[in-house]
Amino acid sequence: MEQATHELFEGENPMNMATDPSLTPFFHPKGIVIIGASHNPTKLGYGLARNLVRSGYKGAVHFVNPKGGTLFEQNIYPDVESVPEPVDLAVLLIPAPTVPQTLEACGQRGIHAAIVISGGFRETGAKGTALEEACLAIAQKHNMRILGPNCIGLLDTHLPLDTTFLPPPGPIPGEVAFISHSGAICAAVIDWVRGQGLGLSRLVSLGNQVDVSETDMIGPVADDPYTKVITMYLEGVSNGRQFVTEAARITPKKPVIALRVGRFESGQRAVASHTGALTGQENAFNAAFRRAGVLRAETTETMFDWARALAWCPSPKGPEVAVLTNAGGPGVTAADALEANGLNLAQLNPITKAALQELLPPAASIHNPVDMLASASPELYAQCLQILLDDKGVHSVMVVLPNPPMYTAGGVARAIIPVISTSEKPVIVALMGSRLIQEAAEHLQAARVPEYRFPERAASALSALTMQADIVNRPQEAPLTSTDVNQQAVINLLRQFKPADISETAITFLPQQNAINLISAYGLQTPPTELASTLEEAVQVAQKVGYPVVLKIASPDIIHKTEMEGVLLNLKNTDEVVQGFKTLIPRAQKTYPKAKIQGVHIQPMIPEGQEVILGVIQDKQFGPLVMFGSGGIEVEGIKDVAFALAPLTQRDVEYLLENTWAGKKLKGFRKLLPADRSAVVDALMRLAQLASDFPQIKEIEINPLRVLAEGSGAFALDVRAGLS
Amino acid sequence: MEQATHELFEGENPMNMATDPSLTPFFHPKGIVIIGASHNPTKLGYGLARNLVRSGYKGAVHFVNPKGGTLFEQNIYPDVESVPEPVDLAVLLIPAPTVPQTLEACGQRGIHAAIVISGGFRETGAKGTALEEACLAIAQKHNMRILGPNCIGLLDTHLPLDTTFLPPPGPIPGEVAFISHSGAICAAVIDWVRGQGLGLSRLVSLGNQVDVSETDMIGPVADDPYTKVITMYLEGVSNGRQFVTEAARITPKKPVIALRVGRFESGQRAVASHTGALTGQENAFNAAFRRAGVLRAETTETMFDWARALAWCPSPKGPEVAVLTNAGGPGVTAADALEANGLNLAQLNPITKAALQELLPPAASIHNPVDMLASASPELYAQCLQILLDDKGVHSVMVVLPNPPMYTAGGVARAIIPVISTSEKPVIVALMGSRLIQEAAEHLQAARVPEYRFPERAASALSALTMQADIVNRPQEAPLTSTDVNQQAVINLLRQFKPADISETAITFLPQQNAINLISAYGLQTPPTELASTLEEAVQVAQKVGYPVVLKIASPDIIHKTEMEGVLLNLKNTDEVVQGFKTLIPRAQKTYPKAKIQGVHIQPMIPEGQEVILGVIQDKQFGPLVMFGSGGIEVEGIKDVAFALAPLTQRDVEYLLENTWAGKKLKGFRKLLPADRSAVVDALMRLAQLASDFPQIKEIEINPLRVLAEGSGAFALDVRAGLS
Repeated sequence: MEQATHELFEGENPMNMATDPSLTPFFHPKGIVIIGASHNPTKLGYGLARNLVRSGYKGAVHFVNPKGGTLFEQNIYPDVESVPEPVDLAVLLIPAPTVPQTLEACGQRGIHAAIVISGGFRETGAKGTALEEACLAIAQKHNMRILGPNCIGLLDTHLPLDTTFLPPPGPIPGEVAFISHSGAICAAVIDWVRGQGLGLSRLVSLGNQVDVSETDMIGPVADDPYTKVITMYLEGVSNGRQFVTEAARITPKKPVIALRVGRFESGQRAVASHTGALTGQENAFNAAFRRAGVLRAETTETMFDWARALAWCPSPKGPEVAVLTNAGGPGVTAADALEANGLNLAQLNPITKAALQELLPPAASIHNPVDMLASASPELYAQCLQILLDDKGVHSVMVVLPNPPMYTAGGVARAIIPVISTSEKPVIVALMGSRLIQEAAEHLQAARVPEYRFPERAASALSALTMQADIVNRPQEAPLTSTDVNQQAVINLLRQFKPADISETAITFLPQQNAINLISAYGLQTPPTELASTLEEAVQVAQKVGYPVVLKIASPDIIHKTEMEGVLLNLKNTDEVVQGFKTLIPRAQKTYPKAKIQGVHIQPMIPEGQEVILGVIQDKQFGPLVMFGSGGIEVEGIKDVAFALAPLTQRDVEYLLENTWAGKKLKGFRKLLPADRSAVVDALMRLAQLASDFPQIKEIEINPLRVLAEGSGAFALDVRAGLS
Repeated sequence: MEQATHELFEGENPMNMATDPSLTPFFHPKGIVIIGASHNPTKLGYGLARNLVRSGYKGAVHFVNPKGGTLFEQNIYPDVESVPEPVDLAVLLIPAPTVPQTLEACGQRGIHAAIVISGGFRETGAKGTALEEACLAIAQKHNMRILGPNCIGLLDTHLPLDTTFLPPPGPIPGEVAFISHSGAICAAVIDWVRGQGLGLSRLVSLGNQVDVSETDMIGPVADDPYTKVITMYLEGVSNGRQFVTEAARITPKKPVIALRVGRFESGQRAVASHTGALTGQENAFNAAFRRAGVLRAETTETMFDWARALAWCPSPKGPEVAVLTNAGGPGVTAADALEANGLNLAQLNPITKAALQELLPPAASIHNPVDMLASASPELYAQCLQILLDDKGVHSVMVVLPNPPMYTAGGVARAIIPVISTSEKPVIVALMGSRLIQEAAEHLQAARVPEYRFPERAASALSALTMQADIVNRPQEAPLTSTDVNQQAVINLLRQFKPADISETAITFLPQQNAINLISAYGLQTPPTELASTLEEAVQVAQKVGYPVVLKIASPDIIHKTEMEGVLLNLKNTDEVVQGFKTLIPRAQKTYPKAKIQGVHIQPMIPEGQEVILGVIQDKQFGPLVMFGSGGIEVEGIKDVAFALAPLTQRDVEYLLENTWAGKKLKGFRKLLPADRSAVVDALMRLAQLASDFPQIKEIEINPLRVLAEGSGAFALDVRAGLS
């Protein structure tokens, strides 16, 4: 496995991806001009020139500064027009107001890629925003791509190339790429990963993203054969669906880890519905990341803890972990940490136990966690590790290493490294301590073995390996769609609502019957409703519908039927229908003397069943997002809901049903009988398809969907639908 | 505040606690004898002697080894009898089989405290367990206290005293104590905290706890005037209630942080009830820690992250945090991390904003998080920090410091330290990076300013300060108890169940009527039930009870009444009661021809209401534990439950009601009307009191308790009670 991945370093492109050719100059420039290069070492324009020259970049390097002179034994040209060929990438570090005209000069000069390091744009207010828009207009005119402004540039440690101004040392060459919305985070990350012995392959600072976005960059960065893991600091995404599509293409081949921040800014949506109240940006991001196969890290440290394991370890075949240590407490801590991270303690094979027993003192524990006791030598660590790795039921090993009282942790590290390096299973080391384990940490880092302080972080890293293995192994799935939907009916229905009817800022809810017709057109079941204008008709219709029935006053002018007691439930026979009709009509006439009374609507009484909520909402970043869970009045309190992007795949539907109590109990629970789970699957699929087909539907909420016994279907008893 | 706490170092005891005098020799020995001292430097018995001599311990030091000789310029005595006065503490590092006779000799010699470092006891099997029991018997005979066996001893950096064999360097003197069930963790922790610039005051390795337990040691350790924070590695507690009592006495004065491990060992309880299924050891521990005011850390790193903040920072007055940084990304990350840790971004005062605006460039953000931009100098950091600290609405400050491009992080650290040291508000620094921020880390550590890598860990530490402030400020509360309970009725009821009836291993459930009588005796409301033997009686009783009523077949021989349709609900008048009686009796006679039919039980029909579950279970470690939450059939699926130790305080009850949806909605929610919350409070209190008064009641579960409208009470509709 390690062997196989090392071959990537030969420069072959395993992804077979076509990078947008307009972005090629950022990563494979033939010649670079630094506009704003300075020979004053206190200026960032000096740092920029220095880093590019020192990086070992093999193409042409040019400097521009109106003051002229020489820098690093090269002429400084007065302007971009004077720069000789080859040059296809410009790096600008000049005052913001001069950026547009300089970009114009670049465009005329035939340079079609620019990195604008300069700040002073959108982040400073309206003037800066105008400048940024001017830059974009120039770029579009010249088919030029712009990275930034207000960024720290990009670097590639393998090409090599460094267009940042950061003080040395830069990152060591490695296999982890970093794409960031924050330049300050880039600088911190370069320093942080260096401290962990982790190298970077490519680093991209996106800045204000006037043109090039995180979605544009993820593909070209993944294309890099040296990059084995992509890490991202995201404050949001510019085009959610495109991001998901791009990332989903990459993640089965290379892991993508994202740290998404900015939650506190998201605030609350207007509470127009339960779905609206419960669907926050966080849920949308999680649904998008799940669809895309992006691993979401909660902290910066976690992101790079995971990146190290993913860059350096083979993929585990499953979640069964063996723990090897020299004391009880560390073993218990490791076992807890594995459980907390969703991993299992492997059941060791009897052959494994026998082999351990032969080597270890009687008081040692040959059960997992394997406790070799404090006397364990480096050789014993290595031997027992090999035995554990040879057990077919063990998918990975965590070696837990407090400094041994009789030996050094460094000695243990040296002894186990050969075993780890030749294994096809991942081995991760939890070092417990600080200075006494420093030597061990350095040996392990040099051998590209992930080491963490304490078992908790090691377990988290192992879980990332397992999550990524699941992403690699999950089959590609097309969304579930149904052909027996009536798109034309929906088009006709929506056509009734002219733009004038619809507020641009707020949501406009459809009348109840329109909402019912909307979902019915896509094959969702609602209780059949028939109008009866007269007493005689009512009796006939009730007979046809089948008892028991529900009577509702029918009037376009009466919206709140329940409040006027305009609904009668569970009428069991002709007498009750007659009595009901004679009660409802006068009551309505009395309560709403001006209302036009059409008669009564008659529906069959839907039997008792399990009740769930189905919702779909257009998320600003990610488009239609489906919610499923426990419905009724209590949905907002219990928050037993899960989310997935529409349209839904089979895996999405299973996720929604298996990650909510509402979904789980459809299979039955104790005294609760199983309900028609497949009807719920069908309803979810159809609702998601409807929202995907008609993005102008801002949200639909079915609460409750009443799910009857197996084979008896599921009925939308109440539905709200809103347009915008 | 810092000033005040420093005074503790003068040696005064602020806790006014009386340490169990039998434990005094462990921390204030007049003379120590090391039995098993060795002059062979490769032996642990040498390390032990070396550490004690080097520790600077000021009392008498004696060595015992049958081989005799000299060690560190002192005679080695052949046996403990030969050791001269003073000596009141023995440290044993000799083969396990010789430990009992040596303890006997110590006892006869008048030594009443022993630390048994030796392994080879309970942890090795039956023989070792027998040895351990022999040790305990000897200790009890001589009124001797034993720490260990199988431990690494204890140390006190201030006395000073070191009875461990760990290779130097030992911990630096400090304010954090560590009590541990694992010796290996002790060694790792000493090394770990040294790497963070954190000192230890006392360290106690508990080993197998044949005598002295974590509960015994927490008091004496807290008594130490140098100790400001107590950290604990716990694999369990030996006497849960005593631990809670001890810890609760300490935590309002000194923070106690516990890392509790061993969750994976706890397994699942037999599922005799919902309460049993839902109450795991984890919930019991969390309830106990909450009652005791113990802060629970999830990881080793977190425990010492918190300890540093608690040892070095003044207490915050509230949760409002200001963030000061030099870039956008770090500010966003900090804001997210604060939110994730339950803290708030402080709203800055207009005066604060004006002062910041005066100092900062126009593009800076003067809103919280305050972003001074990358150009911020060390002086600017210091000035802005002072401004934020002067804002009354700011309770604490997080300074976020990626290495500034134009200055050094070390320079910023030097500039802000004087501001932090003179502040009465906590300031915590999040350093972003590794090597470039190393100097800053060292300056801050030396100045006792907590610094963390990245804002996420800094926010967690700030949250610990806030949690501890809440513990300090929470009023002492007595448990809620009621005097109108009928203890004698319960005694009489329980007396009916002879030990022979009760399985020692399994739980024995009481007949339904006994269970009802049990809770009724403590004033919990159940629907009143009256027996009617004849049709005439049934009509009379129904009249008296008031319509609508419920009729249930009355027979000691028919347990599953519902299954034989032996319950009729909602009978509205005499006719329906007559009809009901005439239906039920023959039906029962037909279904159970041999059953003795007494007639019918008549109850009033309890109106609709909110339904909750109340449960109480005897936890093995912590005794009676109350569960409250959403009831009905779905309780195990939704897991909307919370736990508290019985008896309950007002704070416990509020916790149960405010941390469950079942509790929150009692106040009403949207269309749901408020229910009789005070009846639930009363029921919880009475149930907890019952379980506390009668520990032989293994569990009681009321599911559901139906809660009627405000002022109308709450009725236990179903109850199960089990004995053991």
